[in-house]
Amino acid sequence: MSAIDPLVQANREFAQSFAGGLPGTPARKIAVVTCMDCRIDPVRALGVSVGDANVIRNAGGLIVEDTLRSLAISQRKLGTTAIMVIQHTRCGLSTYDDAEFRAELEAETGVAPPWGPSPFGAQEDNVRTAVEQLRTSALLPYTDDVRGFVFDVDTGLLTEVTQ
Amino acid sequence: MSAIDPLVQANREFAQSFAGGLPGTPARKIAVVTCMDCRIDPVRALGVSVGDANVIRNAGGLIVEDTLRSLAISQRKLGTTAIMVIQHTRCGLSTYDDAEFRAELEAETGVAPPWGPSPFGAQEDNVRTAVEQLRTSALLPYTDDVRGFVFDVDTGLLTEVTQ
Repeated sequence: MSAIDPLVQANREFAQSFAGGLPGTPARKIAVVTCMDCRIDPVRALGVSVGDANVIRNAGGLIVEDTLRSLAISQRKLGTTAIMVIQHTRCGLSTYDDAEFRAELEAETGVAPPWGPSPFGAQEDNVRTAVEQLRTSALLPYTDDVRGFVFDVDTGLLTEVTQ
Repeated sequence: MSAIDPLVQANREFAQSFAGGLPGTPARKIAVVTCMDCRIDPVRALGVSVGDANVIRNAGGLIVEDTLRSLAISQRKLGTTAIMVIQHTRCGLSTYDDAEFRAELEAETGVAPPWGPSPFGAQEDNVRTAVEQLRTSALLPYTDDVRGFVFDVDTGLLTEVTQ
């Protein structure tokens, strides 16, 4: 049995009370960039609703080329004007060394990882760097309302790092 | 006033009933790849809970290099063994031409987009391509339970494209 079957079954129940008809342009004009971590439920943690915000997630909540692609589309095609960057405590990326992981991957698979190095330092520094990358990006028309946070996976609280 | 302030305020209320202490290894051993679209709330739509699944999101729910980086970390460091790829109806990416968007970006900013082209065709074809990319990736140790779906943003229902 596939681990996915129970989720497909649960979706049928979910759909019974689903209200569709919303536009793809986020009502709150916000894009959220955060980590793929299983302990983060951005919609609930930020008190938003379906239809309110674009949500971009990757390992670490990093600003990589593809994050910029998504944000450029979010701002230029879907009308968002603000960005929240949310990294978090006890992140998986802080539990191992990026260079070692890359070497291990290449040794095991014979394939060099096609993505670039993503060294991961102290959380607050990572968030400051990410916010700076966005505020100075020529590809984004709206960079005034870009703010960075750390989400505590044990208390559920956001702490702002940079305003 | 920043558009982000109400979300920070809502987070304080959210945290009052937040139960922490969960590990970063997803309980259901599933990674979900989906679009950043504001109408998708993967946790609710799949009936999962906080702690259950890694969630990776970008514009379109595409399999790009960074998606592989996130999935490699999810499988190799966080113990997931199954992948759901979920794209959706009425996706923003189907409303404009990728090549034109790239040209427009470069003309307006003087900067060529650093990401590669991401042409977007019929939804079912995109999903099939994405699943195939994952099933044949040398970087992922678990490729048996990779399944692709289209989420209908009007009915809330998943339709499986490939099993």
